[in-house]
Amino acid sequence: MTTHRLVCNAWHNVLGTVPPALRIGDGDCVVTETLDAMGMDKDGVSRAGGGNPMNGPIYVEGAMPGDMLLVEILRMTPIRAMGWTRAALAANVVQPDRVRDLPQRKRTEWHIDIAAATVSLAEPVAGLEQLVLPLDPMIGCFGVAPALGQAFSTATSAENGGNMDYRGFGPSAKVWFPVFVPGALFFLGDCHAVQGDGEIVGTGVETAMEVEVRLSVVKGKSAVWPRGETEDAILTVGNARPLDQALQHATTEMFDWLTSEYGLSAVAASHLMGQVIRYDVGNVFDPAYTMVARIEKRWLPPKVPG
Amino acid sequence: MTTHRLVCNAWHNVLGTVPPALRIGDGDCVVTETLDAMGMDKDGVSRAGGGNPMNGPIYVEGAMPGDMLLVEILRMTPIRAMGWTRAALAANVVQPDRVRDLPQRKRTEWHIDIAAATVSLAEPVAGLEQLVLPLDPMIGCFGVAPALGQAFSTATSAENGGNMDYRGFGPSAKVWFPVFVPGALFFLGDCHAVQGDGEIVGTGVETAMEVEVRLSVVKGKSAVWPRGETEDAILTVGNARPLDQALQHATTEMFDWLTSEYGLSAVAASHLMGQVIRYDVGNVFDPAYTMVARIEKRWLPPKVPG
Amino acid sequence: MTTHRLVCNAWHNVLGTVPPALRIGDGDCVVTETLDAMGMDKDGVSRAGGGNPMNGPIYVEGAMPGDMLLVEILRMTPIRAMGWTRAALAANVVQPDRVRDLPQRKRTEWHIDIAAATVSLAEPVAGLEQLVLPLDPMIGCFGVAPALGQAFSTATSAENGGNMDYRGFGPSAKVWFPVFVPGALFFLGDCHAVQGDGEIVGTGVETAMEVEVRLSVVKGKSAVWPRGETEDAILTVGNARPLDQALQHATTEMFDWLTSEYGLSAVAASHLMGQVIRYDVGNVFDPAYTMVARIEKRWLPPKVPG
Amino acid sequence: MTTHRLVCNAWHNVLGTVPPALRIGDGDCVVTETLDAMGMDKDGVSRAGGGNPMNGPIYVEGAMPGDMLLVEILRMTPIRAMGWTRAALAANVVQPDRVRDLPQRKRTEWHIDIAAATVSLAEPVAGLEQLVLPLDPMIGCFGVAPALGQAFSTATSAENGGNMDYRGFGPSAKVWFPVFVPGALFFLGDCHAVQGDGEIVGTGVETAMEVEVRLSVVKGKSAVWPRGETEDAILTVGNARPLDQALQHATTEMFDWLTSEYGLSAVAASHLMGQVIRYDVGNVFDPAYTMVARIEKRWLPPKVPG
Repeated sequence: MTTHRLVCNAWHNVLGTVPPALRIGDGDCVVTETLDAMGMDKDGVSRAGGGNPMNGPIYVEGAMPGDMLLVEILRMTPIRAMGWTRAALAANVVQPDRVRDLPQRKRTEWHIDIAAATVSLAEPVAGLEQLVLPLDPMIGCFGVAPALGQAFSTATSAENGGNMDYRGFGPSAKVWFPVFVPGALFFLGDCHAVQGDGEIVGTGVETAMEVEVRLSVVKGKSAVWPRGETEDAILTVGNARPLDQALQHATTEMFDWLTSEYGLSAVAASHLMGQVIRYDVGNVFDPAYTMVARIEKRWLPPKVPG
Repeated sequence: MTTHRLVCNAWHNVLGTVPPALRIGDGDCVVTETLDAMGMDKDGVSRAGGGNPMNGPIYVEGAMPGDMLLVEILRMTPIRAMGWTRAALAANVVQPDRVRDLPQRKRTEWHIDIAAATVSLAEPVAGLEQLVLPLDPMIGCFGVAPALGQAFSTATSAENGGNMDYRGFGPSAKVWFPVFVPGALFFLGDCHAVQGDGEIVGTGVETAMEVEVRLSVVKGKSAVWPRGETEDAILTVGNARPLDQALQHATTEMFDWLTSEYGLSAVAASHLMGQVIRYDVGNVFDPAYTMVARIEKRWLPPKVPG
Repeated sequence: MTTHRLVCNAWHNVLGTVPPALRIGDGDCVVTETLDAMGMDKDGVSRAGGGNPMNGPIYVEGAMPGDMLLVEILRMTPIRAMGWTRAALAANVVQPDRVRDLPQRKRTEWHIDIAAATVSLAEPVAGLEQLVLPLDPMIGCFGVAPALGQAFSTATSAENGGNMDYRGFGPSAKVWFPVFVPGALFFLGDCHAVQGDGEIVGTGVETAMEVEVRLSVVKGKSAVWPRGETEDAILTVGNARPLDQALQHATTEMFDWLTSEYGLSAVAASHLMGQVIRYDVGNVFDPAYTMVARIEKRWLPPKVPG
Repeated sequence: MTTHRLVCNAWHNVLGTVPPALRIGDGDCVVTETLDAMGMDKDGVSRAGGGNPMNGPIYVEGAMPGDMLLVEILRMTPIRAMGWTRAALAANVVQPDRVRDLPQRKRTEWHIDIAAATVSLAEPVAGLEQLVLPLDPMIGCFGVAPALGQAFSTATSAENGGNMDYRGFGPSAKVWFPVFVPGALFFLGDCHAVQGDGEIVGTGVETAMEVEVRLSVVKGKSAVWPRGETEDAILTVGNARPLDQALQHATTEMFDWLTSEYGLSAVAASHLMGQVIRYDVGNVFDPAYTMVARIEKRWLPPKVPG
């Protein structure tokens, strides 16, 4: 197993089939420093334009359409003490009159105390003087190149991942993406120090991070939507509008997973999902919304060998 | 404080302005035995038709339009060892072809072990032989009469509550409903021994329960949507389609709560909600879907007196 | 055949099971004067509160659940020269910032020239000095009592009709409503002198009209959603959110009509609908949106006897 | 003015920034033969894979981001007597059980009588023996490359056009697309001999056509969504899910057009749109749905010079 360091001088505002920035072997690790959502690096220097500039893509040897790419998030280390958010709820998640006079695009700064592993507002805000949040890092936008020569803005998400903004995608999480092009072409960026469900102010606490991931090819299994695993749960992701449709995709993917790999009949999968499923809301700010279906491992039967 | 026992001989399939079954004082308690969602009582005898037959309504002295009715769920005790679910995921939460050949309306029985506080399938199902769920009681359908002489089926939900199927509405939870008619006219029924998010098989584990609630009138505060409180969080409820709209209602109600009672400015409420909000999915099976916005109490500033 | 004159002294803001204002025989006609959407009568006197106050209900002898009620709109005569609209696009049909500073609730008056059969702004508006619209009367809100003791606000619509605001429901149109309660309990009101698709300013040109309808019971045929017929087309109505769902209901009802009464197989109905269907947008302002599916009669095969 | 003939040997399944197949001057005409939606040419030979293979792209000299590209559809001539449709309503536009046993993917052939300008089923179908539809050609999928290096599948649509399947886009129609990349990069294909609203069987009558268009650059005016003009109306297009959102985009674009080029105030535009707007439903089969807002020219004030 090899660990590569990916140092970027150019970034992408789409997930698509573009020349790889790095080629690695199946199972290799990559360490890379991400820019924040506006393209600022760890020193506060603007390095890239557009929204959510991506590091990559990384070509993984052996990955072919029909495979899955396993992404293990091994480590996420903030490399800047300054994070920022927008100052108002997005107009689509609240009655618009509530926020019509707020400075929607204004940036508010937060202090990331890396040693203490906490996040707090840089300037005092009345009523929130005591608000000290635990650092809870996550990757907002990552995924692989889509099929057919398509290229999707990092403002949105689809079957190939993208800007899902799910707080479960943090250190120790595993994510499987369907592979659509040779080499998979993996992108990542847009890391958050902490974020509520839905990314309802249009941001988490946006900052620069050093991220370490391991990328592996899974042959002979496929999925329509991203799948994931945390310490205590398995999960599936749907990205679409309206949110009902995202929920339907995530639920279908979970159903398919349970019936194909856990040996459950359709009725048994219905029984299990009906009584133990949990839904988490990812991004509800972007063109496609994200819904996650999650089942705790303690309720799962053993995996079927094969 | 008085405790009343409400014994019903007739039930309602709507929440509307119908003659009260009981009149109580502000702050009184009520103990009542509910039927299950199909109208079966604790002995398995069919007592009422339609879906989700309601006990009530209960007229609370002093409640007037513009007030809020506080419902404290003091106790929920299963009074039948048999619960049941449907055997297949609802066709709207999954790709329909996954469930097209399943027995959608078939009832599957579960065993409720009241002493052990567990719930498990009555007949073994391959792969789920070890599935023993903790008893986690909740009220599926409850609320008050809506405004304007309207009457809504207990198959759906709206500003007045109704069939929200939110697993957070269990013992020790508090819920505030806006009052639309004199006496509020409170209804309840449709209790579940356990349920996953979304009620995605169209049921939780449906059973009969003895429920004890305290009903109190809150003067001088009002809300558009139901509000709630659990041991460690406050929450707001939106009921609508699509799910995006339900989320928008719940988020708006939380924003209004934080800015009116917790002294936060609109910007401060945005900051807080943006980084700590959690969304829970209630019913996604009925005509109106339910979304809950939740904030843990540890992040809240003190309430403003008044 | 008898013609009844219905003179109301009380009006309803719901479609529900309330005592009938009139009982008529199957096939009788009724002439009645409606109030406008705010309760003003032909003399501009406020007679009723709430939105869309309804004349009725009319109990039709012999109508029973499972039947259909045929409503023939024989005549609609404006009885007031003043109509009014709201002055701004509704915030949900346009990017909210476009209308945030407009006087949303302000009433603008229009002049209805009954002799010339035209409608024009009462006060000149720059750029619209030449705008003279043909009078095109329609019933905004009508329908029957829903099932189960439910009662729905005249601000919305459902399987029983209600506030559909479809401009095809004018003189010479026929509409069939499913009957849910004995006597059907037919309500009508909220007439418009003219209206664009969608009722996107929240109103048509609201006025008082004298309406003549014939009400007949159709035994042995049923429908889930309202059906209609104009001089040159048949149509079906879906009322729901989002608009996709309304479209799905209307399409399903058309499919069912073609396969049950026109002798088409499912494949033949698909062929016909696929190449000739037209969709019209009714209300997109209310809690439930309205979509109409329409097929010109010239494309229809002969009805199957029976 | 020059007329170019574009003969393709390669086709694209995306609208994106790919090398142009032809470069033309501002205002030049192009004649080209399109393949059908499955890639079959005028002789029934399969020439391209994927869905909706596109001719192009055509680079128009002088077109720059911020301009609009005017597409005048001068002529559409069927060049094959065989057209085809799918045999069943799409599962998302009807209750799924209505079509669950139909051969969804089966192709049904239609005969296009070019001389008579009619379209009819190639094999008799019971009940539709007399169905002879007028030829009503339209371009199903056309548009320009999107911004930011994105590339969108020809199965969907967005601000840049794409698979809108609107029957108003036929001979003599004009369409304006926002330009996002130098040269605009115009694509077209997927022509239909006739099609109902919504493309609800997933196809119109799919065939090969010879199409002639004139492409011109409009400097100094811009739009967010496609705009169009037919002989008697102006129109705007929104592409999104759910259909409500598409309607909102189309309505906003019409509002912006009326207030910027026709000199109407926001209130005047509201008055006009409120009483005369018509909505047409384009594609409701694809990932993004299409809604068209249309106003007849007879209601428009004169354009403001400039």
